[in-house]
Amino acid sequence: MSEIDHLVANAAIYEERFDAGLPIPPKLQIAVLACMDSRLRIFGMLGLHEGDAHVIRNAGGIASDDAVRSLIISQRILGTREIIVIHHTDCGMERFTDEEISNQIERETGVRPPFAFGAFQGVDANVARTMDALRGSPFLPHREDIRGFVFEIETGHMREVLA
Amino acid sequence: MSEIDHLVANAAIYEERFDAGLPIPPKLQIAVLACMDSRLRIFGMLGLHEGDAHVIRNAGGIASDDAVRSLIISQRILGTREIIVIHHTDCGMERFTDEEISNQIERETGVRPPFAFGAFQGVDANVARTMDALRGSPFLPHREDIRGFVFEIETGHMREVLA
Repeated sequence: MSEIDHLVANAAIYEERFDAGLPIPPKLQIAVLACMDSRLRIFGMLGLHEGDAHVIRNAGGIASDDAVRSLIISQRILGTREIIVIHHTDCGMERFTDEEISNQIERETGVRPPFAFGAFQGVDANVARTMDALRGSPFLPHREDIRGFVFEIETGHMREVLA
Repeated sequence: MSEIDHLVANAAIYEERFDAGLPIPPKLQIAVLACMDSRLRIFGMLGLHEGDAHVIRNAGGIASDDAVRSLIISQRILGTREIIVIHHTDCGMERFTDEEISNQIERETGVRPPFAFGAFQGVDANVARTMDALRGSPFLPHREDIRGFVFEIETGHMREVLA
């Protein structure tokens, strides 16, 4: 039995207690933009229930075009009005540079990937930069209530970045 | 107290039971690519624990450039080898067309957004298309173990898409 088969078996247990019939628009009108890191259990951390909030995640939790695309749909089609940005300490994105990974890929595949990887140094500044990018997006109708946080992997504490 | 303040208060409770000190590389060497939908509680659904798997989420759970960027980092920097794609029935992405939302935004802001929105019809085909795109990406070193699922919002059942 592969690891994925185990997860599928877990899903069959979850099915028994799933709250079916919830509507599409998130109840709290909130979207979370967070890093993909495996130690960030977003629903558990924030006390969210099924149906409460959109959760958008990528490497770093950055305001990529795709995150902005998702937030546009979240706000314009599905009625969310607030955004929570969550990055974290001890992030894999601080362990390499864009140059290094692009070189590695070009060496192995012969092709240089046509995009930036978003490696960074300094998580507080990265949260501030992400909030700035969202606040500057003309396509998002709701940009007043954007708040950013750093989740501290060392302690489990989530602290706000005021910027 | 705003809704976000409530979530921050929940995070302070979560902090008490957070398992600090887990390493960066996901223990199960798995990355999940799923829709941002508020009814998809990925950790709970799959029985994941903190530290087990990367979770990448966007509107639709599609293989966007940003999702591929995240998966490249997941595999090349942080050692994951398998990918689970999870889309779902009753998706907001089936409720509009790219043309409609682009027109709406152009009318309101005067600028046509420079990207596709990924609206779709037919969730099974969309899962298959996402798996195809990942399997075709030359930048991902591990493409043998990619499996795709539809989570049925009406029942809580997760079924595999064989493609």
